Amino acid sequence: MLTVTTKTSQQENLLAGLRAVLGEHGLLTDANDCARFTTGARYGQGSTLAVLRPDSHEQVVECVRLCADAEQAVVLQGANTGLVAASTPDASGRYVVLSLERIKKHIEVDVINRSVSVDAGVSLQELNEALEPHGLFFPIDLGANPSIGGMIAANTGGARLVKYGDVRQNLLGLRAVLMHPAGEVLDLQTALRKNNTGPDLKQLFVGSSGAYGIITRAVLQVHRIPKQTATALVVPRDQAAVLELLSVLERDCSEFLTAFEGVSGAALQAVLKHIPSISNPFAPEPVPHYCVLLELASTADPQVTGIDLESVLMRCLENLFGDVVENAVVGRGKDLWRIRHAISEALRHEGKMIAFDISMPRSSFVKFRDEGLALMAEKYPWIKVMDFGHWADGGCHFNMVWPSAEQAESTNAIPSYDAQVVQQIRTEIYDLVVNTYQGSFSAEHGVGPYNLDFYQRYTASSSRQLAGELQTMLDPKRLLGLTWFGE
Amino acid sequence: MLTVTTKTSQQENLLAGLRAVLGEHGLLTDANDCARFTTGARYGQGSTLAVLRPDSHEQVVECVRLCADAEQAVVLQGANTGLVAASTPDASGRYVVLSLERIKKHIEVDVINRSVSVDAGVSLQELNEALEPHGLFFPIDLGANPSIGGMIAANTGGARLVKYGDVRQNLLGLRAVLMHPAGEVLDLQTALRKNNTGPDLKQLFVGSSGAYGIITRAVLQVHRIPKQTATALVVPRDQAAVLELLSVLERDCSEFLTAFEGVSGAALQAVLKHIPSISNPFAPEPVPHYCVLLELASTADPQVTGIDLESVLMRCLENLFGDVVENAVVGRGKDLWRIRHAISEALRHEGKMIAFDISMPRSSFVKFRDEGLALMAEKYPWIKVMDFGHWADGGCHFNMVWPSAEQAESTNAIPSYDAQVVQQIRTEIYDLVVNTYQGSFSAEHGVGPYNLDFYQRYTASSSRQLAGELQTMLDPKRLLGLTWFGE
Repeated sequence: MLTVTTKTSQQENLLAGLRAVLGEHGLLTDANDCARFTTGARYGQGSTLAVLRPDSHEQVVECVRLCADAEQAVVLQGANTGLVAASTPDASGRYVVLSLERIKKHIEVDVINRSVSVDAGVSLQELNEALEPHGLFFPIDLGANPSIGGMIAANTGGARLVKYGDVRQNLLGLRAVLMHPAGEVLDLQTALRKNNTGPDLKQLFVGSSGAYGIITRAVLQVHRIPKQTATALVVPRDQAAVLELLSVLERDCSEFLTAFEGVSGAALQAVLKHIPSISNPFAPEPVPHYCVLLELASTADPQVTGIDLESVLMRCLENLFGDVVENAVVGRGKDLWRIRHAISEALRHEGKMIAFDISMPRSSFVKFRDEGLALMAEKYPWIKVMDFGHWADGGCHFNMVWPSAEQAESTNAIPSYDAQVVQQIRTEIYDLVVNTYQGSFSAEHGVGPYNLDFYQRYTASSSRQLAGELQTMLDPKRLLGLTWFGE
Repeated sequence: MLTVTTKTSQQENLLAGLRAVLGEHGLLTDANDCARFTTGARYGQGSTLAVLRPDSHEQVVECVRLCADAEQAVVLQGANTGLVAASTPDASGRYVVLSLERIKKHIEVDVINRSVSVDAGVSLQELNEALEPHGLFFPIDLGANPSIGGMIAANTGGARLVKYGDVRQNLLGLRAVLMHPAGEVLDLQTALRKNNTGPDLKQLFVGSSGAYGIITRAVLQVHRIPKQTATALVVPRDQAAVLELLSVLERDCSEFLTAFEGVSGAALQAVLKHIPSISNPFAPEPVPHYCVLLELASTADPQVTGIDLESVLMRCLENLFGDVVENAVVGRGKDLWRIRHAISEALRHEGKMIAFDISMPRSSFVKFRDEGLALMAEKYPWIKVMDFGHWADGGCHFNMVWPSAEQAESTNAIPSYDAQVVQQIRTEIYDLVVNTYQGSFSAEHGVGPYNLDFYQRYTASSSRQLAGELQTMLDPKRLLGLTWFGE
């Protein structure tokens, strides 16, 4: 897929200008060097005229000015871990990639304020390593290791949103470079929790898929690392009981509840089948129809407060046994989370994954799941639904697998994979989520070329009009990003 | 101050059109009827051509269309409780007031989702009365009783922000009517905690002082009413000890901490002097130099979890006695909160209040307070600083009083009140907060005519340019609101 594009003289001039700013090491044009920047984490494979690798905010400003002058289209990229192809150039070769991964010199922790000022190219893991000696962490819990700038552009959520909120809720300030006026710097680097001094401009850049401006630094609220956690894998009586369990936990343990992750029996089966090091936690009982991974956490030492979370959790669950709860394994937090984190890998062994990142009001969850499973069983019986989800915040990965031939369990033949059928399935599930249950077709992954058709389908015309006007205001020549939010 | 303005024939035509939409009861033009709409809660006193009182979203749309056609300037008003004069027309008489107070038919609670869909004119108190039977509440804790629409336009914070966040952090969705295109409805009424489907347009209307659009409905996240609380009034060793106390509480009680309110000795003295029903809680000890009102809360019944918050609080404080903490009164939550809530009234008895609503990084609090007190003592020795503040979220009401003649305690004469000197004091304190300590001149009250000069002074040109462009996009003829955020 690596293609060498012939450059125009205008492009040659631009590259010469960029090279003067960035140096040889800061500008990649060789297709092999560029390869890792042109391949998306899950979707997206393209080519690029060049990869710009500034190592300072000032170099970013210069790059933006040069690209704007040359009317050169630019794709922003952090760690390129996004799941909607918003940071990977397309195959046209008309884009340059502006990589922020070298903007990572600055991490300044304010322990008393529980905040950190951090360059956009710093990765989540690097940030947490810098915070750890202070007993602090940035609590967005993800499978990937994105850059901070990318996390803001996608407004990532994760498994512990119920406790800590999403990136937006922990963003105190930022600094952005605008495409228009070209290279203008918007300095909104406050470290304030309360600051109502007019429109909150930083909000424009959160969840905007890198199409509204270039974030070079952020100020984040950070949190204390918990001193104790209590974990359980709970088997609810039935689907309705999942909501009853959530309700009781939100009453009796609400201050401690950090995760409430539903795992379908099918997903658990797949983990046990394909990940040999994980065994059925309910053995000798069979794998249950459904289970919920619960986590409570506290920053307090049990010695100081007298609160032992595992006892608290046991007391709550005891009251529910025989009614809401059928079975439960308490403790062994690492083992239980390993099951949850192994699901995606396990599903890939089953065949081709069809991933969903949907959300809905919690009150619609049971009805949606029943209806979604029935729809799939009736119209696409060979597809295996292996869903899991963050019930407490309404998020659901209603993932499914198109089984590979060797995974066929019955004598019924499995049709060969058909991208058009997959797109039809997507549309039917999204229609159900959005139109019937007022949910979202993209809960935490954002919008990019991968799901832009669905953005157009489900976003009201008045919203697209306004989003497009905003984008035109910030980037009248549409040079920035792959995603056009207008009509 | 009530003035009768002579109407042009174009205005007469507009009023006739509005009367046809709103009916006689829905349109006020008599100056006496209009009086309560033209007087601000703290600042602002003006006159109006008419008060429009639509009782449905559809009537709002019609009003906006008619006003846009006639190029009639409009001031939005909820409960008119704001403290920056953003909802009160000026004296020019050129505005009409569009009051949302009758848009209050709809309150729909989703208990499982912990959310409520609510009309913009519903008051905070009415909302909480509707939520209470479900064991739920909207946790923005304020002295006033604003409308929900006004709370969004100001992004109110309050005393329990450390636990529950501000309005923005609890806003799931809204519906807004735009001035341009006139009467266009932006329907963003989702009830989702995770929804990353492009730019989050509802953020535009949060904290925009009613200048970007007209909110007619909101979807809010609500919370469970706590089952138990523990309260204490704590005397710290000195100012530095306030931050040490906060740090320990955020470690040992972080999940429960709902309020951390500093009260200066001067403010407490004023309360005891002017509010006869309140007595010194530390008696027979004298009034301390400073104290902190702490609150822990939990939704759990102590019988279920075995957690008794008062014991937890006692254990934490015991460890701090003789070092960080000099004295403490634990319990009697209502009495202790009465002291805190009586401060504003007490200060009014002392003379003319000069109120501040500032914030800064918590790490700057001690230095700022020392410097601010020294500045006042040196340059304005007759002014009494009687500050209190929400230390946990960085908010501070560095309030002061220009004593009335009868309050003079020494033989030194008190200069008579001088608005120019007050403006000079404001500027010096704000300069210290914003320029030296990277704080905010408006932490939770927002921006309006009252503090627009300071907005211009402290907001970077690039930010004002963008805010103005946004405003022009949404309201090219500048018909909406009193606040121009541009340069």
